[in-house]
Amino acid sequence: MTRKQRIGILTAGGDCPGLNAAIRGVAKTAIVRHGMEVYGISDGFLGLINKEFIELTESKLSGILTLGGTILGTSRVKPFKKESNGSRTISKPELIKEHYEQMGLDCLVCIGGNGTQKTAYRLSQEGLNVVGIPKTIDNDVYGTEKSFGFDSAVNIATEAIDRLHSTANSHKRIIVIEVMGHNAGWIALYAGMAGGGDVILIPELEIDIDNVAMYLQERAYKNKDYSIVVVAEGVSPKRKKKSAAEYIAKMISERTGLETRETVLGYVQRGGTPSPMDRILATRYGSAAVELIANNDYGKIVTLRSEIIVPVPIEEIAGKLKVVTEDHPLVKKAKWMGTCFGCNGSGSNNNVQMQK
Amino acid sequence: MTRKQRIGILTAGGDCPGLNAAIRGVAKTAIVRHGMEVYGISDGFLGLINKEFIELTESKLSGILTLGGTILGTSRVKPFKKESNGSRTISKPELIKEHYEQMGLDCLVCIGGNGTQKTAYRLSQEGLNVVGIPKTIDNDVYGTEKSFGFDSAVNIATEAIDRLHSTANSHKRIIVIEVMGHNAGWIALYAGMAGGGDVILIPELEIDIDNVAMYLQERAYKNKDYSIVVVAEGVSPKRKKKSAAEYIAKMISERTGLETRETVLGYVQRGGTPSPMDRILATRYGSAAVELIANNDYGKIVTLRSEIIVPVPIEEIAGKLKVVTEDHPLVKKAKWMGTCFGCNGSGSNNNVQMQK
Amino acid sequence: MTRKQRIGILTAGGDCPGLNAAIRGVAKTAIVRHGMEVYGISDGFLGLINKEFIELTESKLSGILTLGGTILGTSRVKPFKKESNGSRTISKPELIKEHYEQMGLDCLVCIGGNGTQKTAYRLSQEGLNVVGIPKTIDNDVYGTEKSFGFDSAVNIATEAIDRLHSTANSHKRIIVIEVMGHNAGWIALYAGMAGGGDVILIPELEIDIDNVAMYLQERAYKNKDYSIVVVAEGVSPKRKKKSAAEYIAKMISERTGLETRETVLGYVQRGGTPSPMDRILATRYGSAAVELIANNDYGKIVTLRSEIIVPVPIEEIAGKLKVVTEDHPLVKKAKWMGTCFGCNGSGSNNNVQMQK
Amino acid sequence: MTRKQRIGILTAGGDCPGLNAAIRGVAKTAIVRHGMEVYGISDGFLGLINKEFIELTESKLSGILTLGGTILGTSRVKPFKKESNGSRTISKPELIKEHYEQMGLDCLVCIGGNGTQKTAYRLSQEGLNVVGIPKTIDNDVYGTEKSFGFDSAVNIATEAIDRLHSTANSHKRIIVIEVMGHNAGWIALYAGMAGGGDVILIPELEIDIDNVAMYLQERAYKNKDYSIVVVAEGVSPKRKKKSAAEYIAKMISERTGLETRETVLGYVQRGGTPSPMDRILATRYGSAAVELIANNDYGKIVTLRSEIIVPVPIEEIAGKLKVVTEDHPLVKKAKWMGTCFGCNGSGSNNNVQMQK
Repeated sequence: MTRKQRIGILTAGGDCPGLNAAIRGVAKTAIVRHGMEVYGISDGFLGLINKEFIELTESKLSGILTLGGTILGTSRVKPFKKESNGSRTISKPELIKEHYEQMGLDCLVCIGGNGTQKTAYRLSQEGLNVVGIPKTIDNDVYGTEKSFGFDSAVNIATEAIDRLHSTANSHKRIIVIEVMGHNAGWIALYAGMAGGGDVILIPELEIDIDNVAMYLQERAYKNKDYSIVVVAEGVSPKRKKKSAAEYIAKMISERTGLETRETVLGYVQRGGTPSPMDRILATRYGSAAVELIANNDYGKIVTLRSEIIVPVPIEEIAGKLKVVTEDHPLVKKAKWMGTCFGCNGSGSNNNVQMQK
Repeated sequence: MTRKQRIGILTAGGDCPGLNAAIRGVAKTAIVRHGMEVYGISDGFLGLINKEFIELTESKLSGILTLGGTILGTSRVKPFKKESNGSRTISKPELIKEHYEQMGLDCLVCIGGNGTQKTAYRLSQEGLNVVGIPKTIDNDVYGTEKSFGFDSAVNIATEAIDRLHSTANSHKRIIVIEVMGHNAGWIALYAGMAGGGDVILIPELEIDIDNVAMYLQERAYKNKDYSIVVVAEGVSPKRKKKSAAEYIAKMISERTGLETRETVLGYVQRGGTPSPMDRILATRYGSAAVELIANNDYGKIVTLRSEIIVPVPIEEIAGKLKVVTEDHPLVKKAKWMGTCFGCNGSGSNNNVQMQK
Repeated sequence: MTRKQRIGILTAGGDCPGLNAAIRGVAKTAIVRHGMEVYGISDGFLGLINKEFIELTESKLSGILTLGGTILGTSRVKPFKKESNGSRTISKPELIKEHYEQMGLDCLVCIGGNGTQKTAYRLSQEGLNVVGIPKTIDNDVYGTEKSFGFDSAVNIATEAIDRLHSTANSHKRIIVIEVMGHNAGWIALYAGMAGGGDVILIPELEIDIDNVAMYLQERAYKNKDYSIVVVAEGVSPKRKKKSAAEYIAKMISERTGLETRETVLGYVQRGGTPSPMDRILATRYGSAAVELIANNDYGKIVTLRSEIIVPVPIEEIAGKLKVVTEDHPLVKKAKWMGTCFGCNGSGSNNNVQMQK
Repeated sequence: MTRKQRIGILTAGGDCPGLNAAIRGVAKTAIVRHGMEVYGISDGFLGLINKEFIELTESKLSGILTLGGTILGTSRVKPFKKESNGSRTISKPELIKEHYEQMGLDCLVCIGGNGTQKTAYRLSQEGLNVVGIPKTIDNDVYGTEKSFGFDSAVNIATEAIDRLHSTANSHKRIIVIEVMGHNAGWIALYAGMAGGGDVILIPELEIDIDNVAMYLQERAYKNKDYSIVVVAEGVSPKRKKKSAAEYIAKMISERTGLETRETVLGYVQRGGTPSPMDRILATRYGSAAVELIANNDYGKIVTLRSEIIVPVPIEEIAGKLKVVTEDHPLVKKAKWMGTCFGCNGSGSNNNVQMQK
């Protein structure tokens, strides 16, 4: 009789709604469909370095589908980062390899964002069998239409914008809300559009603050009493210690004299119960990852393309970023309806020159 | 100087979250980008028959993005349905045509499901310029990956299933929850998967109730204390005056002796604030529909394919239904994880024979 | 050295949001403040009959504050109910007493509604030390202003009514929604008022259906296009197998010819995360119950009076019901604003004769 | 025939969930029950100075019950504040008096917090008939058990804390969340208790940050991997330009070396749909205020005492603040369960000495 296949699973990087759904998707498919053994590794790659893990049995998966965060814990430990301490006799990647073998793993499932997939790729080059699952609330993992966590984050950010509307309206103010997105403005774009933001500022598009000020002034002239400005956190001055929201709010009030207030939404965007669509996507990713393992098809990451799960080599996506472009359908549609993106030519008065 | 283009817009069929977002998407794009005039027609096709409408100015659109239902009202009036009263001198389609011309419309935007699009198509054959926008919480409009309203309905249904888990668990019961879906089981499939339903029963797939009973009994033996059964409303006995939930619950308790309870979720699935994704999709549809009009490209319906808005001839989709098939990725993945779909071979014990 | 005090805790009757918060309140106060031992008994009084329990340590309490249902399980087993089988040699109350002593309990905390408190009282007469904590989503426990679970149920019911507004409005219908409340109409009264229900029907107040029909007809005449009717489940015909909603909807449509639809909200009202106020109330009750035990003050139930927790003898409240009366402030205020309660004199036309 | 009584109504100060419900409660009771005329005054006292108002008819009240903010607008204009410009010939209070008379008002309903009620009181001294309705999300209006807005704010803050738990847990961090409350820590106390906060810091209670640090360190030693610290915004260093959250987070990480993150919840706490209980309370206040007017009983503010609406002279409450005290039942109960309030003696190790 052959021994059961045994897989390890870890979650690395920032936490994100749907991680537990993905863990459950992996483990249930592995156990129920393929009779595999599943080891849950603690705190991302740190758990492999320290050899800390537990076996995930069906009873451990009960009730986690709806839970935010990750039952395995996570960390931002990067095993391939050079250490200043030259005296270490055994490197972290070596330790990971050693423990991988001692644990008798046939494959390691790495759930994480860009950084995590880069590490996963390097581990696969070191000879480990790895399969990647993309996650990020920022939606900036390259090569996949959607990562789980994004839908939940957009829901939370939109709900916040909905709330701010009543305050902005009652007080006739400009409210600047900062949402997550360091390198990519997806959350700002989606939540801004869903929440009816008048101005949406993201790091990918050039911002002319005078243009923004003029646009808001014009709204005030037209008796549109208040405005909502949605800003991605990446839109911040590099040298100054200010949040993007503070920075933009200050520049607007200086230029327009209008009353502004700012809100930084922060960590609440990461937490809580995943949205139904994130639970489904995470489950599908998890389940599909196990099929790859069952077919000994390693070094792949599962991605979503045209609503279908498609496995692609990890190196195709590792280290690359998916960002918003000026001709993205949402950007164009929002401009057609008068939304200002801060860049030249986006104001309501000249958007008739825009092309589809 | 040429006169402004003038478009009419109506919402027909059952109400659905996102209708107002679509109306706003149409009107803002028409007014802001193209300087068109927009007439909102009351209560679906009834408003065209009775010539009841108002002009939609920008101020009338303020605040409607987040509103459930439709500010225009809706009805299920079918103008092409034969009337028993033969004495009428002027038919409804003729009235509609007459009023369309009296109102000086250049195009009619019809937001609705399968029935509405069929009517829209026939009006286009009568010589009217029409553009269709698909909506349905059931997700059964053919030819488009998604209709707005579906995401919101799945959210509400999943939240209900989440709630039922605690009762089912505390009382160690089988709870049968009925969600919307007469002809298509999309809501049951998505909410069932997102909510961790143990059994999902939909009209498209054959149901062997003995198999379901055996599956639930087996769970009970394994000390899985409770079970959630998600049923689409279409899974109901034709001749008996019972809801699908009542019917299934009774058959389960008769066969297993286990304690069952049922809940029919009902109209709450249609109502309330649209989800962010539904607002965005509705807005995109609305905006894209106006682009067609601006290009005098009539007789089309906007659809979503691979995340892109694609216009297709209305007759390609009118009267057809999009239903769940046995090999749908979600059905397959759910089976892999042990979910029972009621049909032979779906139980946890024999799903290892399933193919991808 | 004296041995630690040891308390047992059980939850009985229907499940309800806040049970876990109460369990946590009892156990944390007992362990952290008084160094007691806490035994969690399974499935209500059944667990005492079968001697099934686990020790509740601090780690078992982690994360349960926000959880719906009860981690202990519940049942409706009534130990003092006469058994038809006369041959049993040992009665259930005797078994309970025996196991109470074998387990070395100093006190039994009984969390439950009217029925549970009645049993608790009889156990105290049998010589057990008991302390009661009231819970019920119906808010009908006598002697306390509020029971936890009620606020959460009102939230869920109100959210449902909010959703139904958009459908009722879009389709110009009368929607009848049935909420929980067999003997007492508290949920209907609160949710009806919070949700802007036009008609509120509860079992405590006489209902003249002709009056209701006239009231709704009058609204239609005044171009108030749609109406929301909130009905407590207790408002149902005794002999007929119909829900209260079906029954009322049918009688309204028969009398008015207006289009009606009904929704029975059902079990979702019991489930899910407790509201913040329910968590706090449950925690306070739990904590206060332990103080009684620490003072050897048994046979009491904790109640809320003027926002203060007050212990009262269980027999003062056991077996009694708190119901809505015609002169309740909410009923009066709602009438002043034109709400119809179905009884004579409550219509909008004659409410000027109402007295404060 | 006598002319109809005519009342004015305004909302002043910060916006707050339930303002529209209160406006509706006033207007519907006035119109339906008493046949009065109701004038809605724009932007708080500013609308009286500028004589800007609209008549509130029943149709204007439709749908506002669930709406956040205030349809009347609000401002923080204080008419009795001394103006530096000595040349004005007519003072603001004189203008208000003049316009009050020109508008033919019989009474002015002032909905607002402490500042607003102070102004209302001074206007009553100037001879105007006024009735006050307390509102504040901070719950610090003296003389009433509850102000509407508070329940909604606690719901939002608690939901945020719930979300942060998953992040704190996954990353094993200390998360400091700042909620509203400049002078009073009610939101922090309630949301902290409902959200299971480990530390709650409010301006009313002395804070020894070394004690807090020791408490958190101790939790870490006991393998309680993460902690939630809830801080009221009033807990901030006077001279430094830092939020309370930043300030506390920095001091904790300096003292403990533990990883901390902070979130300032901000304006979202003010916005959005009021909770059902806030809608009911606001409605009751509004309705009761009109009864006072109908009885020519002026100079009063409606308050909630033991669940009953009680009118009291405005001067009894104007200018006073309701704050949390050390012996508040919630503070005591939370301490019993091990919550740290930052003051000496509140840590888990010495709370056994606490008295009821």
